[in-house]
Amino acid sequence: MKRFAAEFLGTFWLVLGGCGSAVLAANFGGDGNPLGIGLLGVSLAFGLTVLTGAYAFGHISGAHFNPAVSFGLWAGGRFPTRDLVPYIVAQVLGAILAGFILFQIASGAPGFAIDPNAAGAFATNGFGARSPGGYGMAAAVLCEIVMTAMFIVVIMGATHRKAPAGFAPIAIGLALTLIHLISIPVTNTSVNPARSTGVALFAGSGAISQLWVFWVAPIVGGIIGGLIYKWLGPDRPDVVGDQR
Amino acid sequence: MKRFAAEFLGTFWLVLGGCGSAVLAANFGGDGNPLGIGLLGVSLAFGLTVLTGAYAFGHISGAHFNPAVSFGLWAGGRFPTRDLVPYIVAQVLGAILAGFILFQIASGAPGFAIDPNAAGAFATNGFGARSPGGYGMAAAVLCEIVMTAMFIVVIMGATHRKAPAGFAPIAIGLALTLIHLISIPVTNTSVNPARSTGVALFAGSGAISQLWVFWVAPIVGGIIGGLIYKWLGPDRPDVVGDQR
Amino acid sequence: MKRFAAEFLGTFWLVLGGCGSAVLAANFGGDGNPLGIGLLGVSLAFGLTVLTGAYAFGHISGAHFNPAVSFGLWAGGRFPTRDLVPYIVAQVLGAILAGFILFQIASGAPGFAIDPNAAGAFATNGFGARSPGGYGMAAAVLCEIVMTAMFIVVIMGATHRKAPAGFAPIAIGLALTLIHLISIPVTNTSVNPARSTGVALFAGSGAISQLWVFWVAPIVGGIIGGLIYKWLGPDRPDVVGDQR
Amino acid sequence: MKRFAAEFLGTFWLVLGGCGSAVLAANFGGDGNPLGIGLLGVSLAFGLTVLTGAYAFGHISGAHFNPAVSFGLWAGGRFPTRDLVPYIVAQVLGAILAGFILFQIASGAPGFAIDPNAAGAFATNGFGARSPGGYGMAAAVLCEIVMTAMFIVVIMGATHRKAPAGFAPIAIGLALTLIHLISIPVTNTSVNPARSTGVALFAGSGAISQLWVFWVAPIVGGIIGGLIYKWLGPDRPDVVGDQR
Repeated sequence: MKRFAAEFLGTFWLVLGGCGSAVLAANFGGDGNPLGIGLLGVSLAFGLTVLTGAYAFGHISGAHFNPAVSFGLWAGGRFPTRDLVPYIVAQVLGAILAGFILFQIASGAPGFAIDPNAAGAFATNGFGARSPGGYGMAAAVLCEIVMTAMFIVVIMGATHRKAPAGFAPIAIGLALTLIHLISIPVTNTSVNPARSTGVALFAGSGAISQLWVFWVAPIVGGIIGGLIYKWLGPDRPDVVGDQR
Repeated sequence: MKRFAAEFLGTFWLVLGGCGSAVLAANFGGDGNPLGIGLLGVSLAFGLTVLTGAYAFGHISGAHFNPAVSFGLWAGGRFPTRDLVPYIVAQVLGAILAGFILFQIASGAPGFAIDPNAAGAFATNGFGARSPGGYGMAAAVLCEIVMTAMFIVVIMGATHRKAPAGFAPIAIGLALTLIHLISIPVTNTSVNPARSTGVALFAGSGAISQLWVFWVAPIVGGIIGGLIYKWLGPDRPDVVGDQR
Repeated sequence: MKRFAAEFLGTFWLVLGGCGSAVLAANFGGDGNPLGIGLLGVSLAFGLTVLTGAYAFGHISGAHFNPAVSFGLWAGGRFPTRDLVPYIVAQVLGAILAGFILFQIASGAPGFAIDPNAAGAFATNGFGARSPGGYGMAAAVLCEIVMTAMFIVVIMGATHRKAPAGFAPIAIGLALTLIHLISIPVTNTSVNPARSTGVALFAGSGAISQLWVFWVAPIVGGIIGGLIYKWLGPDRPDVVGDQR
Repeated sequence: MKRFAAEFLGTFWLVLGGCGSAVLAANFGGDGNPLGIGLLGVSLAFGLTVLTGAYAFGHISGAHFNPAVSFGLWAGGRFPTRDLVPYIVAQVLGAILAGFILFQIASGAPGFAIDPNAAGAFATNGFGARSPGGYGMAAAVLCEIVMTAMFIVVIMGATHRKAPAGFAPIAIGLALTLIHLISIPVTNTSVNPARSTGVALFAGSGAISQLWVFWVAPIVGGIIGGLIYKWLGPDRPDVVGDQR
């Protein structure tokens, strides 16, 4: 029960912090104002939610905070099948609560409104007209798969028992920062179906209609990453629930 | 006695560094000049004051540097009641000294003046007309409570005896960076009554009149965070004075 | 075999992440738009590829990801001669795959085209008219040699058995970030022949014609760095393949 | 002898990296161009020179790279009197070599010239008309003293035997980043007489005429910091040459 609560809280933190920085601070002061934190600040924020959450909750739940991570660790032989559904349910619920709280805070600014047709509105993920840089569906899917696969490879490598102990949250959190530094222009960066869901529900039908891509591509990528590392890793630790 | 001196010095460093970067460097070169460090640089500075201060003073005082942290750890069963008042007094005095030194340095620039009606003047916290983004009181209070609660959860998790030893200052400092990346536009980010007090005293009656909010909301949030982790944590270390 | 696969994947990650952030996100929104991650974001991305890759693959291959690093460690007495060629082949192949994947993703944006005459096109390295800041060949060569030499010195120092265990990926990754913070304007920063090759192949004959400089200068610098540390280091560990 | 060589190389790296990023990359693309790394990037670069240098050389020389640090540790009872002069000579020589190499690289750009009257020219430190923000001498001296004192306090605290082992280079390097985030507008940030000297020699008589301030203020600050921590620290390790 407490493991699920940790996943709930950690994913809440990921979405509140990552999407919150995008909604509230990325473009602070308006177009062209360098005071805003920009894509670099948002990238850092996403990574820090995982870095801090993994130090806070890693010893409780393993700190997945992401259905694609749970699937990837499962494919890599590090996560038991019976925990997949409850972990993912907890993650999605935490993400939705974060979307709700973020909406309440954002609504407190004068003139706040979500344009349901704008790319990246309310930090949603998208492709085509909903991609921040106008990237098409093929590029978006390729990008999400490759990024999530490498994310899982880094997670499995950094939590391997031969890797230096204690550093995994730094490696994993900053890997998420790196992924955002590359791919925000393409899809606004998901690599996490819960994160995509948590904000899409508050941003209108356009975001919701593309949401399935941000479930399929990250999970496919996560499974590919898990299989790559399973082959690559020099040995395999026992199956446990809290590897990170 | 040395523990209180460490809290004094650490909070001095937090306010001098965090608020100092905001006052001196955030908008360097004037509006629209990308040389300035912006909200991203200020967020990093706040976090680094705690990261560096926690490595420097953590083994002396536990490195709270923040009345809401002291209250949160107290609610979480990690900090003794008898130390609450002296810690908070030391923190507030350190913050005020930092506000004073910062004022002396800032006054050395030609044309320096604090506009008492400007949002965020002299790095003060505020809501409504005093919020950098014009956020109302309800959003400000919600934001400060949620951010401080999650800050305490991260602090308690990262300092738990099952968490990797030695990494807590990184997790905690960067959690403060993350919180600023999200919430500077809302309240200029307090989550720390001492920090709010240290600069408000030099910024005129407008900032002082809102100061009570930045005592109540962070402390309420801190207590909520302490109670959440107390329930969540798989076990509880002994009550000690220097947990971090 | 798995060591070579790790070098392949790690160099793939380095080029995809570092060059990918440059191509996709550095100038997001167009000239003058502060939303883009700029040279600072690209510098961070390059460093994080190595930081995360070294935690993920360091215990498998030593995490060179760079022919100049392999040569430098060889010159410093830390890497066996027989592994030089297979490591470098794996690195170059990984870099080329990254260039290919990056090209596929980048092509998904409307109006994407590589101007073969533009300095830094598709994140290529160059000097003279191909240097981002117009720096001549002598400055470019000097810069690449000095930067690579210091990179190897940091690598050998941070992986020395007297250095704190486990921190080397942080030191090495952030050294690469630092090197980019200094030298992107000069050569777009190589210090890595594989990285230069991986993108040059997709950017036209101009980039390819200068490519030899970004093989010679980094390798010369790497060997100098290896020899400096070999003299400087207080003692020498055994020759092994996975030092980092 | 190797300890002095390590101080020489480390200070070379500090000046080449910190001042190099300022000269070559801070304002890349010209005024108002957000591609440049700005004060935030320069702050990060200075900190990373020390972070990386301390992991590379800390186990050889203690990684001072700064006469004010050597004086501060001496005042704090951590550094023997007999090593003060050779350490400082090595540091200054390394800084001057860095200034020379940086000048050679920078000269490779078309139209490069140092305006000897410009504030911060060639990354020099200054006050009054030579302060980036026009700060007067009193503010500059106060700022340098306070920043250096806190720098030494962090150094002594983070290298104390009760602090977590191995993390000191992170705390110390990022403390230098923090100090730059605050104080570049005031004095272009010295806190290091060797760093100030290494570039002043190449920037004309104006910078040289103010150089004495950036010897006196940082050393006074360093000694104050050393005495503060000597009183504050719960105990005192033996006097050794390689504490960090």
